[in-house]
Amino acid sequence: MVGSQGRPAVVLVSGGLDSATTLAIARAESYACHALSFDYSQRHRRELDAAAAVAKAGGAASHRIVRLDLSAEAGFGRSALTDRTPVPKDRRRRPGIPPTYVPARNTIFLSIALGYAEILGAWDIFIGANVIDYSGYPDCRPEFLQAFEELANLATAAAVEGCGRFTIHAPLIGLTKAQIIQRGLSLGVDYSLTHSCYDPSDDGLACGRCDSCRLRLGGFAAAGATDPLRYHHQP
Amino acid sequence: MVGSQGRPAVVLVSGGLDSATTLAIARAESYACHALSFDYSQRHRRELDAAAAVAKAGGAASHRIVRLDLSAEAGFGRSALTDRTPVPKDRRRRPGIPPTYVPARNTIFLSIALGYAEILGAWDIFIGANVIDYSGYPDCRPEFLQAFEELANLATAAAVEGCGRFTIHAPLIGLTKAQIIQRGLSLGVDYSLTHSCYDPSDDGLACGRCDSCRLRLGGFAAAGATDPLRYHHQP
Repeated sequence: MVGSQGRPAVVLVSGGLDSATTLAIARAESYACHALSFDYSQRHRRELDAAAAVAKAGGAASHRIVRLDLSAEAGFGRSALTDRTPVPKDRRRRPGIPPTYVPARNTIFLSIALGYAEILGAWDIFIGANVIDYSGYPDCRPEFLQAFEELANLATAAAVEGCGRFTIHAPLIGLTKAQIIQRGLSLGVDYSLTHSCYDPSDDGLACGRCDSCRLRLGGFAAAGATDPLRYHHQP
Repeated sequence: MVGSQGRPAVVLVSGGLDSATTLAIARAESYACHALSFDYSQRHRRELDAAAAVAKAGGAASHRIVRLDLSAEAGFGRSALTDRTPVPKDRRRRPGIPPTYVPARNTIFLSIALGYAEILGAWDIFIGANVIDYSGYPDCRPEFLQAFEELANLATAAAVEGCGRFTIHAPLIGLTKAQIIQRGLSLGVDYSLTHSCYDPSDDGLACGRCDSCRLRLGGFAAAGATDPLRYHHQP
């Protein structure tokens, strides 16, 4: 059901499990959700198809894809998600930041979401960041999100002119992957539409072996639920 | 002279007077300056030609233009610089934020500069923001820049892994327009290459009447110098 009633919010929707759940939570809180996705030269464009399907099924009031070239050819790259750096497989959790980190990605995405929110007259931005079962990215941590919220309220005409205050919502921040999935299932999220794999095969199947697949599969197992996705390497 | 020696820095170069001066200051401090400009659907593409000329004349080690669609058609807009909102003319300074404000522009530009700096291994980002003779944008103020610097050091793998600390340099922040021009002239900046006008005529001449032209012309007059640009409306 499309929800264009309610206070407007911008929801970052990557097409993954976390952002699908975040959208469902924002809708359950009666926001009119304006979904925002990024075509940032990621290797796997299935993400954007998944984002469109997630936004539609999740009742977003609108969905926009912002194009931004962060490819190696444009001078960016330096991530297994945007260039040919190999995606690590079958690894156990370990300290440190993995090669799938994209420099300043969430800072860039939140900045554009902030501009979009200001244009829409929205004061609420939702992001599916979490720090329990996650890949170790610095720009998913609560201290980062808190700093961004402070910045947002200094950066914009809307905030400086005193009309209101921006809030960065990260409703998954303290949840395990199993808790995220349980929450999403309780809200009717269709996880078959989502895409999590960092390295899908040419036929579009999730690999089952990258960090993202492992976190997802572990989450479904711990939640006592079945992942509706098909995997190339079925564990 | 191209300066590819020295510590690398990212310098935001719009093609305007302030960023040309900022580049000259960064070069004088012996940074190898990687100039970054944005094709953000601004109405006046002459800015990008000016940016390229300024980067070249200013000895940048490299110059990149990042494309990012912030047009009204893409759901953004809402600024006299990116849509058809009229550019104010002949107005005196007054409180409040003018219609040439682009929502979250400097947050977005600095975020992308941050990702680029991390990729280059640079810890220094230069921006030509100033708050004395300026247009009243919230994202030029020192408290905004300070908040962005704090964010940068929470957002990135480089900073979190403890290799260093990002610094946002705004060497013009406390200077009047006249002081900026005097500084630039002393460093050999060729202001004939720069573009400041918010509303140039079809033949490419600066209007002489928008806020940006008025600040510029006032600055040259106060500096006792001659602006090498030609104006449609010569004051």
